Amino acid sequence: MNKGSDFMKFNYQLPVNLIFGRGRISELGVQTANYGKRALLVIGGGSAAKSGLLQRALGFLEASNVESVLFDGVPQNPLTSNVDEGVKLFKDHCCDVVVGIGGGSVLDTAKAIAFSAVNEGELSDYIFGLKQPEGAFPIILVPTTSGTGSEGNCFAVLTNPETKDKKSLKSSFTFAKVSIIDPELMITMPKRVIASTAFDALAHCHEAYVSKAAQPLNEMMALYAIKLLGENIRRVYNDPSDLDAWESVALASTLGGMVINIAGVGLPHAMEHPSSGLKNIVHGVGLAALTPAIMEYNLPYAQGKYEIMAQALGGKSAADAVDLISKLLEDIGLKVTLGELGIQHEDIGWMSKNSLKIMKANVDNNPRPASETEIAALYEKCL
Amino acid sequence: MNKGSDFMKFNYQLPVNLIFGRGRISELGVQTANYGKRALLVIGGGSAAKSGLLQRALGFLEASNVESVLFDGVPQNPLTSNVDEGVKLFKDHCCDVVVGIGGGSVLDTAKAIAFSAVNEGELSDYIFGLKQPEGAFPIILVPTTSGTGSEGNCFAVLTNPETKDKKSLKSSFTFAKVSIIDPELMITMPKRVIASTAFDALAHCHEAYVSKAAQPLNEMMALYAIKLLGENIRRVYNDPSDLDAWESVALASTLGGMVINIAGVGLPHAMEHPSSGLKNIVHGVGLAALTPAIMEYNLPYAQGKYEIMAQALGGKSAADAVDLISKLLEDIGLKVTLGELGIQHEDIGWMSKNSLKIMKANVDNNPRPASETEIAALYEKCL
Repeated sequence: MNKGSDFMKFNYQLPVNLIFGRGRISELGVQTANYGKRALLVIGGGSAAKSGLLQRALGFLEASNVESVLFDGVPQNPLTSNVDEGVKLFKDHCCDVVVGIGGGSVLDTAKAIAFSAVNEGELSDYIFGLKQPEGAFPIILVPTTSGTGSEGNCFAVLTNPETKDKKSLKSSFTFAKVSIIDPELMITMPKRVIASTAFDALAHCHEAYVSKAAQPLNEMMALYAIKLLGENIRRVYNDPSDLDAWESVALASTLGGMVINIAGVGLPHAMEHPSSGLKNIVHGVGLAALTPAIMEYNLPYAQGKYEIMAQALGGKSAADAVDLISKLLEDIGLKVTLGELGIQHEDIGWMSKNSLKIMKANVDNNPRPASETEIAALYEKCL
Repeated sequence: MNKGSDFMKFNYQLPVNLIFGRGRISELGVQTANYGKRALLVIGGGSAAKSGLLQRALGFLEASNVESVLFDGVPQNPLTSNVDEGVKLFKDHCCDVVVGIGGGSVLDTAKAIAFSAVNEGELSDYIFGLKQPEGAFPIILVPTTSGTGSEGNCFAVLTNPETKDKKSLKSSFTFAKVSIIDPELMITMPKRVIASTAFDALAHCHEAYVSKAAQPLNEMMALYAIKLLGENIRRVYNDPSDLDAWESVALASTLGGMVINIAGVGLPHAMEHPSSGLKNIVHGVGLAALTPAIMEYNLPYAQGKYEIMAQALGGKSAADAVDLISKLLEDIGLKVTLGELGIQHEDIGWMSKNSLKIMKANVDNNPRPASETEIAALYEKCL
C-alpha cells in the first residue's frame, strides 16, 4: 500500500453538496432558494428546451419563489467572450445566484459567470494566475450529460477566442454550492454524445489514477469509477433508457470530476485541449483519438497501475488495459483518428508547442515525461 | 452493482478541509489564523503535555499570532457538563475559534463547545432534536489517536451525567473547518490505546458498510478502509513506531469517520453506548466485546456484504469475516467479555432498554432487526 511519503501527503476538500438520484431535479427550486432570489439560468443550444427540462426547471424555481433570467445558447467549447455576455446579463438583471443546467460547456460557463461577476478585469488573467480572485456568486449545477464531472470540481474550461488557448479556470470559489445529479436527465442524449461524454469520464479517471500527483482518496475513487464505467458504458450506449446503468455512469462521471480535482489530468487532456481549441472538436472524441496511443506510451512508466486498471476493466496484464480501452472505443463508435477530426500534419507544430505552453502542469502530471518532440510524434501517430 | 434505487439515492457533503501527512501539525497556526485570533485549545488528560505536543501546538499558534486559552483535562466519555465548563471559559476569554488536539473525547468536546457557545440552552435539547441550532464557532481538529474519525464527520458523542444517556450531537455546524491528520502524532500511544482506537475505526467501517442506509460512496470508502486496517492494525500494534503503517491506519480512521457520517453505525455501537454510558468502559474495548457476536447475528441478513468484507480482510466466505475479526482482536489483546469490563447480569435490563431508547436509529440501521429481547440475549452472550 505505501507508495512513499508523497502519496500519503495530501489535502482534500470537496465542499459541494452532492444530491444524487432519480427524479431529484425536483429539488432544484428548494436548493436554489437557499442561496438567492434571482437566478441567471444558463443552458445550451436548445436540447433542454426541446426535452421539456427547461420548463420543468423554471417551474421548480418559480415554486420556490426564485425568479429566473435565461442565458441560453452556450456553445460547445465555450469562449471567454461567452462568459462576458453572461456576466452582463447577470449584472443587468441584478441576479444573485447562477444555475447551470446542461453538459460540461454549460456548467463551466455557469461557474465562470458566477466568478467573473465578482472579480473585475480580464478572465484570462485569473486563468493564468496573474490576478487573485476575491469570491464568486453561489453556483448550482445540474449535469445533463455524464462526462465532464464539472459538478464535482472547481474547474471551468474556457477558450480564449483570440489566442485559441483552452485552459481551466480553477479557484476555491468555483465549486458549486449544490450539484443535483439526476440520472433520469441523461436518457435523452443522442448516442454520439453518450459515447463522447462517457469516454471523457473514463479519461478523467484514467489520467488521475496514473497521475504523478495521485494520492489515496484519488486512487480509491478513480478505480471505483473505472470499474463502474467498464461495466456500464456499453449498456447506456446500447440502450439509453437503461436507468440502472445510467445511475452507475452518472456516479462515475461525478467521481471523475472529483479525482481530477485531486490529481489533475495528464497527457491525453494536455494534448486534446490544443486540438479542440484549434478545430472545435468534441472534447471526448478528441480524447478517444489520443488515449490508446498515450496509454501505450505510458505503459513502461506505470506498469503496476495499468495492471490494476486492467483488472478493474476485466483484464489481467498492464497491456490489457490498452486493448480493453481500444475495444470499448470500437464498441461505442469512437474509433477515430485526429485526421478524421480535421487535424492536419501542418497543425502539429503549433499544437505541440501549445500543449506545453498551456497544459505544462498536466504534461508534468503524466507518469512518463513528454518533450515537444515526443508530443509531436504522438500527435503524428494519432493522425 | 445496482442494489435498488435507495442505494443509488443519496446526499453527500463533507465540507472539511482534510490536511493529511507526516509533520503537517506544523500548519496548525497558519490554518487556525484563517478562522480566528483567540483559540480555546482543548486537550485531554496530560499526554499532549507529556509528549511535548502541547508546547509545539502553542508555538505554531503563537507564530501565526493566534492567542491560546487552554481547556485541559477532558475525560474519556466526556459529559455534557464538561462542555458547559469549556463554553464558560470560551466566553470569559472572548475566544473566536476552537482547536481540539487529542483523541475522540477531546475532538468531540471541542466540537460541542464551538456549538454550544452559539446555541443557548441545554445541549441535550439539541442532541435530542428538540431545538434547532443556528451556527457554531469555527472548529479545527487534530486527532492524536486513530479511531474515532471525529475529524471526518459532524458527530460529537456526549454523555448526560444525570441520565447516563450517551448520544451524538449531529449538526451541519459541527464539521471541522480544517482537520490536520498527522500520522507522526500517533506513535506515542500506549498499545492498549492503539488497539482500542484502531478497532473503533474498523467497527465504524464494518457497521457503515453493512448499514441499511448504505450508498455507493460509503461502500467504496468503507471497503478501502477495511482493507487498510486489516493490513496495518497488527503492524502498528506490534511496532508503534512504524510510520508507514500509521499512515494507512490514520487514513482509514478518517475514512471510518466519513462513512458513519453517510451511513450511520449499527447494532455494535447501539449496544456499546449503554455499556460505556453506564460503566465508563473504553469505547473500543466495549465494541471488541460485542462485535463478533453481533456479526454472527447479522450474517444471514447480509451474506453478500460479509463475503466482500471477508475478501478485503484476506478471507473468502461470509463466515470468514467473523473469524478474521475474532483473530485480529486476539492478536491485539482485545479478546474480552462484557463481564470482564464490569457489566453484570442485572445491568442488561437497563442497557437493552437504553439501547432502544437512545440508539433506536442505529438499531434500525442494522441489517438484521433487533428487539429488546434479542438485544438482551446478545448482551447475555457477550457477558
